[in-house]
Amino acid sequence: MIIIDGKKYRDELLEKYEKEIKENGLDITLAIILVGSNDASKIYVRNKIKFCEKVGIKVNLYSLDENTSENEVIKLIEKLNTDETITGIILQSPVPNGINFDKCANIILPNKDVDGFTSENVKALYSGSEKIIPCTVKGIIKLLEHNEINLKGARIVIVGRSEIVGKPLALALTNRDATCTLCHSKTENLKDFTKDADIVISATGKAKIINSDMVKNDFIGIDVGINRDNGVLCGDFDFEDVKEKAKFLTPVPGGVGPMTIAMIIDNLIYMKRNEEVNNG
Amino acid sequence: MIIIDGKKYRDELLEKYEKEIKENGLDITLAIILVGSNDASKIYVRNKIKFCEKVGIKVNLYSLDENTSENEVIKLIEKLNTDETITGIILQSPVPNGINFDKCANIILPNKDVDGFTSENVKALYSGSEKIIPCTVKGIIKLLEHNEINLKGARIVIVGRSEIVGKPLALALTNRDATCTLCHSKTENLKDFTKDADIVISATGKAKIINSDMVKNDFIGIDVGINRDNGVLCGDFDFEDVKEKAKFLTPVPGGVGPMTIAMIIDNLIYMKRNEEVNNG
Repeated sequence: MIIIDGKKYRDELLEKYEKEIKENGLDITLAIILVGSNDASKIYVRNKIKFCEKVGIKVNLYSLDENTSENEVIKLIEKLNTDETITGIILQSPVPNGINFDKCANIILPNKDVDGFTSENVKALYSGSEKIIPCTVKGIIKLLEHNEINLKGARIVIVGRSEIVGKPLALALTNRDATCTLCHSKTENLKDFTKDADIVISATGKAKIINSDMVKNDFIGIDVGINRDNGVLCGDFDFEDVKEKAKFLTPVPGGVGPMTIAMIIDNLIYMKRNEEVNNG
Repeated sequence: MIIIDGKKYRDELLEKYEKEIKENGLDITLAIILVGSNDASKIYVRNKIKFCEKVGIKVNLYSLDENTSENEVIKLIEKLNTDETITGIILQSPVPNGINFDKCANIILPNKDVDGFTSENVKALYSGSEKIIPCTVKGIIKLLEHNEINLKGARIVIVGRSEIVGKPLALALTNRDATCTLCHSKTENLKDFTKDADIVISATGKAKIINSDMVKNDFIGIDVGINRDNGVLCGDFDFEDVKEKAKFLTPVPGGVGPMTIAMIIDNLIYMKRNEEVNNG
């Protein structure tokens, strides 16, 4: 059994990105909009800033008051859209009540949409002409490819149908010729699906819902869950229980999580290079 | 075994739509853009005109020369977008080489996008807040619902990953709490997937690829294929072979096909009513 070390691979990628940015003199600035004072959001933002600055990406943080109106957020996004010094924009989720996240995020110009949430980027993913895809999805695919895990014809079961992971992942893996089943909270007898899967990817946020009875020998497990079980951080897989049956398995923490931040940088570099192409 | 009669249900729906349009004085005009002289396209367009006019919807046909430029198509769409007398717009596929269908279709205003192909409508489907969804997909769901076939928790295998049927259907059925597997030409051992499915929906365009060995007893078969086998029209299912095992089965012709045209009208009525809401 091989534990896929996302942290190690992230660090390799960050080194590569840092070099690429330096050697090519890529002048990249990320704008992050943080509305309100959600504690988790603050941690995420702090991490994004830390890793971006580490590789030579500037970050402009727009920290807005809890009482900011939707209109003010929209105006700020519109200003950043037309600001040529800004490469990419992130609207940190969640936003306070009274602000429609989807509506605001969709105003970000598709070619500045780091998270890949806009209609144009979703449509591109859907139609197989991917442009910017959600960072967690890109991170999972990079991890699989880096470990030379075959996707073409692979049977993949995805558990969880969120817009950030499950649905875009099903589309992205279908684009790569995998056969995907998208399971969720209303799926009956989840085991019937997971037991034959070559790859099981879980993103439900329910601690240890996947155990060794539910997977086949030599399965590949990708754990996107970040949960707590009796106060201890754990994933959607019961790691100790399934590990004997796994060929590859990502741990929590240290698996998929670290990749997401690296893919923000990957997307920003892609956007910067694309910008250069567009400008001639 | 019940053969689902799409033609009969279509006719019931057309009667209902005609009444609804008349009683509410709905003034609906559909604009169809036909570029070039593809024979199949001409037949499709003729049918759309026939059924729309039957229920009291006006159709403006813009029949453009084979050599029309992409720019001219775009200009026409922009004109129709701002024309308040036009309820909905269809750009008939396929278009001649030199015209990018996706690019042109995406210029149609989302609330005039009868086919549901625009990024905004795809994103709405993806995020579970469906607005206008592709007519074939809507037709299949209507057929299933009309026959009181349970979708919640159902195991559905979709064969074929097109943007017109397979992918939007997987999203729409996931929105309705079904567990969907999206199979395609690179799926290995298709039977492994279809044999356990409550509902098998095939849209591959390959004659009779699904036979009785591949399905379970009392399965429900929805056949979106329109193929020819030795000159005879047939679907993706080997109808005579599978019918004994089926609980419900759609025939070809006369199953899903007739529903698609009815859903164009369904979408147009939805758009007209929506327009009234927006203006009122």
